[in-house]
This record gives sequence, C-alpha cells and structure tokens, in this order.
Amino acid sequence: MLVNGQPGQRLSALDRGLHYGDGLFETLRCEQGRVCWFERHLARLGRGCGILGIAMPDAAALRAEAESQVRGLPRAMLKIIVTRGVATARGYRPAGDEQPTRIVAAYDWPPPAGPEFRAGLSPLPITMHPLLSGLKHLNRLEQVLAQRAAAAAGLHEVLMPDAGGRVVSGSMSNLFLWQGDELLTPADGECGVAGVMRSLVLELAPRLGLRVRQTTLSAAQLASARAIIVTNVRLGAQPVHWFEGRRLEVDPRVPLLQELIDGTPS
Amino acid sequence: MLVNGQPGQRLSALDRGLHYGDGLFETLRCEQGRVCWFERHLARLGRGCGILGIAMPDAAALRAEAESQVRGLPRAMLKIIVTRGVATARGYRPAGDEQPTRIVAAYDWPPPAGPEFRAGLSPLPITMHPLLSGLKHLNRLEQVLAQRAAAAAGLHEVLMPDAGGRVVSGSMSNLFLWQGDELLTPADGECGVAGVMRSLVLELAPRLGLRVRQTTLSAAQLASARAIIVTNVRLGAQPVHWFEGRRLEVDPRVPLLQELIDGTPS
Repeated sequence: MLVNGQPGQRLSALDRGLHYGDGLFETLRCEQGRVCWFERHLARLGRGCGILGIAMPDAAALRAEAESQVRGLPRAMLKIIVTRGVATARGYRPAGDEQPTRIVAAYDWPPPAGPEFRAGLSPLPITMHPLLSGLKHLNRLEQVLAQRAAAAAGLHEVLMPDAGGRVVSGSMSNLFLWQGDELLTPADGECGVAGVMRSLVLELAPRLGLRVRQTTLSAAQLASARAIIVTNVRLGAQPVHWFEGRRLEVDPRVPLLQELIDGTPS
Repeated sequence: MLVNGQPGQRLSALDRGLHYGDGLFETLRCEQGRVCWFERHLARLGRGCGILGIAMPDAAALRAEAESQVRGLPRAMLKIIVTRGVATARGYRPAGDEQPTRIVAAYDWPPPAGPEFRAGLSPLPITMHPLLSGLKHLNRLEQVLAQRAAAAAGLHEVLMPDAGGRVVSGSMSNLFLWQGDELLTPADGECGVAGVMRSLVLELAPRLGLRVRQTTLSAAQLASARAIIVTNVRLGAQPVHWFEGRRLEVDPRVPLLQELIDGTPS
C-alpha cells in the first residue's frame, strides 16, 4: 500500500477525505500484474477531480504506483483514493492550497459469491445530486446502509430506487434488465455511478446481436423481468439468479458477453 | 489531538471513515476549558451511532478526552469524529467486527466573519435521505460544493433547497426566518442537520415573546424576508445582513436571544 507514493498504511487524521468524504476512488481489477481498463478508470477519476476542483494526480505516476502494488500477483483488486488532502483551514470551505492525498492499495481477489447470486429491491432509496451523480466519490453511506440491509436479508446485492421510484443502480453495481434481444439500463446521468463495466457492456453487447437501450426502469419492470445482470469490474457481467425470492433465467449469451469483456484489455 | 485516546495525528488509511464517510462528527464550542452543551451533542451522536449501527463510545471517556484537549483555553472549537473503524473486509458491507475509531481535536476559535454576514441561495440542492437526514455524518461533499460556490460568490453562507425547492438549511447552519413575533424554521426531519444551536433557539425564543413555527420555507419566502438568522454552535444566532444582495433588518431581540444562548450552559 502506498500513501502519496510512500509505503505505509497511515495518513493524517486531518485529511479532508476523512472529515467530509472530500475525494474520489476507483476500484480496479488486476490480472497477471496488469491493471485492467486503467484508462477508463483514469478518465472517470479525472472527470471527478474536475467537478470537485481537486488537482488530478499525474497519470503516469499513478499508473506506475498501481502496477507496483500488483506486480507478480495472478489476480488482485486495487483501490485508488484521491482526496483534496490535509485540511489547511477548519470547515467545509476548501482553502485552495490543499495538496491532494493519493492512496494506492492492493487487496486479495475476493472469493466468488457462490453459485447463485441473490438480489432484491433496496428498502432504502439512493439520492441523486446533479453534480455528484455518476462520480465515484467518497460519500458512500447510502451504499453502506443498503449493504447492511442486504446482509440482513441474506442478499448479495440490492437494487436502489431514487426518490421518484426509478431504479437507478445496485449498491455496488449497475444493472441491465435482459429482455429478448434487448438490454435495458438506467440512462447516463441517471445511474448511480458511471461504471467502467457498464461502459464495456454498452460497447460489447451489440457484437452479440443485443441492442442496449438507456431508459428508466421501475420496480414493477424488475418484478416481472425474465433476466437481470449486474455489473462491476469485480463481478463482470453477473447474472442475478434470484430477485426478490423469484428465480430468474440466465440468458445463454451471458457467458459470451463475459468472454468478450475478459478479452477487452483497455 | 487524540486518536483513540492517544496523542497523535495519524490514523489507518484503511479506516471506513475515509473510504465511505462511514461515521459521524460533532463540532463543539468550548469556553474557559468547558465543553458547551456536551450532553446535547452526545445525544445526537448516540442517535447517529444507533442508526448507522456503530458502537457508541463511552460517554464519560469521551467527555474526559474532550475536556483534556481544551483545558486552559479561553475559547476553542472541538471536533469529535467517530467512525465504524478500520475495515476488516473489503467493500461497503460492514463485517460487524470493526472497532470504532474516535478522534478528538481542538481548533483555534476562528476569527469573526466580519461586521456584515452575507448569504445567498445555493445554486446546488441538498439531497434528503430518510435515514441520514438530520445526522451529522461524514458524507459532506454537498456542503463542500456549496461552500465552494459560496466562496466564489463572496458569501459566508448559502441556504440550500431540496429537490422540491423547499429551503432546508444552510451549508453549515440552520435557518430561521424572522417574521414579526414569529420565527419560521424548516421542520424537524426536514432540516439538514438536527442542530444543537437550533434546539437552543427553539427552547429559548419563547422567553422573548417569540413563537417558533416549524414549517416549510420556499425561496420566495426568503426573497421577501425582513430578517433571517442562521445558527450553529460557532456562530450562535447570527443575523444575516445581506441575502442575495438585499439588505435585511436585524431584529433588536437578536442580541437578547444571543445572551440567553450564552447563558445556557447545557
């Protein structure tokens, strides 16, 4: 683990990342020492830094730090955190002279979820902020609460409605409703996080003869869905086997989609 | 500054407070070594811990730590942060065996805002989550963005509407619209944070013959307000002298209210 490029696991208790969640993160898949889809992650991180007004770390240095942490590992997860840095003044208002903090940490590849992936509808909504939606920022209490509810219900994931009842995303994933030759997914700007795996599915699905339609999804549509997949860089295109206690189908093209994903290096 | 009761300014870069904002804070006023309204802060912290499922630190130990940091200081601000602790597993879902982290830090009393307090309407909304609203949790990016906008506009504070256009709170304060002998304030459960200073104003205003009505406030009501005060434990009952470039009145009872506040020790 590196904190500002130096090996270590400690950081200042005055960091604005801790005090306000004033920062961003990326979770990356690493295979055979290679950081997958690094440029896509970097682009999202850069967009987030622009919106929050945080200086974006140097891309080449960040890549070198990332690769240094997973060298020799067959498979790993990598987390990059960039915060506005240690507070130089008290209060929410940034002073403007903060030096960004960056943390790069490798994690063991987690064990698989088991043969059957169980999801449900979150009893808690997700809020949507016009500037923050889509960003992978550090304000994640809604996801923590949703995952606590999922754990209590024996579920791997919960799909989260916004205040208007539109299902926006999973707590840790994006979603696609599989309907014949069509995949339906919440539209850009209305999904919780602009997912890297979501972008790959949008690009690759047409190669399997699937059309992807960005739209709004209601809980009622999910309740009658034949098949659903959820996506993130760890799970890939994960079929949901049970949704709200109802067994779903797994389209035979899901493994083909997964192969295409795994064969797309950047 | 104390981290888990020990002098020091460092904490683990794996703390869930940093990764997710998975925790709570309190900002306290200290006078002559005394921590003002400690029990009110403690009660709010306890409610937050209950909702987030974080073990509440021992109250007596927390008080002793707080007092140790401001002993001998004529005036100071104190910040208490309680997080769920260092992550024992990857991901949003708490493992359940985390040990809470507590940080107690004293800050210099900040310089006054100047003779005239300038506020405006935030161009950015505040989102309202059914479980999180009212809590002083660590997810504060909306407030950071609002304060950046305030700084760019030369304002001390911005008042924030929710998605429905109801003005809910300031970015760092609660608000009261002063209307004759009546103070109007967003209702419990619809204000951004259940403020300690707000609770004091609710209790003390009737002693000055003022009625307080919890209601909804629109931007239009603010635009025609005669007088507005904003409240937090640092500012007390702060009159707004300018709102959206319009000069407001300061009711002569504001200094009396402030005296009552300063004379209420707990």
